[in-house]
Amino acid sequence: MYLMRLGAVGAEKPVARVDEQTYVDLSDVVTDFDEVFFGTGGVDRIRPIVAERTTAGQVSRFAGERIGPPIARPHQILCIGLNYRDHAAETGQAVPDEPILFSKSPNTLVGPDDDVRIPRGSTKPDWEVELGIVIGRRTSYLNSVDEARDAIAGYVVVNDVSERAFQLERGGQWVKGKSAETFNPAGPWLVTPDEIDDVLGLDMWLDVNGVRRQDGNTRTMIFDPYFIVHHLSQFLVLEPGDLINTGTPPGVGMGFTPPVWLRPGDVLELGIRGLGTQRQRVVGPR
Amino acid sequence: MYLMRLGAVGAEKPVARVDEQTYVDLSDVVTDFDEVFFGTGGVDRIRPIVAERTTAGQVSRFAGERIGPPIARPHQILCIGLNYRDHAAETGQAVPDEPILFSKSPNTLVGPDDDVRIPRGSTKPDWEVELGIVIGRRTSYLNSVDEARDAIAGYVVVNDVSERAFQLERGGQWVKGKSAETFNPAGPWLVTPDEIDDVLGLDMWLDVNGVRRQDGNTRTMIFDPYFIVHHLSQFLVLEPGDLINTGTPPGVGMGFTPPVWLRPGDVLELGIRGLGTQRQRVVGPR
Repeated sequence: MYLMRLGAVGAEKPVARVDEQTYVDLSDVVTDFDEVFFGTGGVDRIRPIVAERTTAGQVSRFAGERIGPPIARPHQILCIGLNYRDHAAETGQAVPDEPILFSKSPNTLVGPDDDVRIPRGSTKPDWEVELGIVIGRRTSYLNSVDEARDAIAGYVVVNDVSERAFQLERGGQWVKGKSAETFNPAGPWLVTPDEIDDVLGLDMWLDVNGVRRQDGNTRTMIFDPYFIVHHLSQFLVLEPGDLINTGTPPGVGMGFTPPVWLRPGDVLELGIRGLGTQRQRVVGPR
Repeated sequence: MYLMRLGAVGAEKPVARVDEQTYVDLSDVVTDFDEVFFGTGGVDRIRPIVAERTTAGQVSRFAGERIGPPIARPHQILCIGLNYRDHAAETGQAVPDEPILFSKSPNTLVGPDDDVRIPRGSTKPDWEVELGIVIGRRTSYLNSVDEARDAIAGYVVVNDVSERAFQLERGGQWVKGKSAETFNPAGPWLVTPDEIDDVLGLDMWLDVNGVRRQDGNTRTMIFDPYFIVHHLSQFLVLEPGDLINTGTPPGVGMGFTPPVWLRPGDVLELGIRGLGTQRQRVVGPR
């Protein structure tokens, strides 16, 4: 299934995408794609409903509604740093021995085509296309990497927008440069694992103003999604609906010589094969 | 006012403490002390109700109920690192130029007297008595430090429990050592600012098994609560009900030679003058 949330900010309705033209409205059976939904077997519950409505032709046509993030604001957004070998190299940092964990404020979550707003005082705003994991159940102390498969509700495209001066020059911990409003576009879809042949073979890319900047594949990840979920579950409790950004391939602005920073008016286009595409306009500070 | 939540985990009822023996039950007028409550002027709304019920003698007697954390699980828990001059020195780190920001998972929040559970694989579990700030309104880009006063709903005692090996030896970012379940006892009360003469003159202490380990005062903070709230509001949006742990004074286990780590069976007693006291039993891993 391909779960989406359509409508104005704060008033999105939960739907399941059928194809490019149509979707099944689920707002009569689901309050939201949130912690309660994922934590109470919501994905399994709606599966037959979506199938039945699709077969019966009970579908609606997309009509230019805003696309929200495919999940409600999560309990936490966790991020893995330097998780692609080539990206670690381009930032001048060593390949980590184990996943580097940092977080961003959950209220950074926005829709895939919403504006990305440069924060006040920003000098080094940057982009990061990433594979996002959505957690499907309360998860703690998994016994094996293999058990992590059952803990994953699905995958999303994420732009882990970053302010490098805030991240690296303002106190040593990264969260300060990751948490400005609009810094976590997600979607357009939450794709359930059964729709993905091989999560470790997905092309991903990001263009700035039509110029290809990131061009990678999940096969070059250092720590794969199952490893990450198992690993994190040893340190903290993952809640249903939590989002984990799994790191970015090479080609971030920081990695160019000289570096390339985002500016108001820039257009970001990014995607992961099978998970959909995003398009953001970059706007100046409030 | 002194806000509390009484009852079993996940079923706490909101009340206002009157004195050591009695409280005003607010569960008929307040759903919870959560983001909606703080974000819709809840504190001002209940103030006359608490006064009226107290005057009318409409109070209940404490009857040994569990004390929960005084706020519902927040949108985020932010923490300031190395914010007391002497504590920075004892950990061998430089006094920071500006607040060091890190986060912990919101589901670490527990009541002031709940057990603290050592996580699996832990070798260096440690304590940190701290002054916690609860945010009272959506807060972004404050124009002045003085404006931060209006953004603060109140203060709480917090034990910012830490696992030093996870924090400092497992990838470089601190969140991994701050986010195990039970790692954020808070309470017993949320104290509104009008009840506190001088938030920069509060004695704070922490005992382990009856031995005084931390003995400080908020006057030795490097960055005061108003500075912190103003500063953070430049980097991210604070939501109503968010919790900010403002750092710990000297005397953490890591600072002794040799270091002193928590063990199952230890008893932690800590407090801040006027904000109440906590008592936690330390238990072994699940």
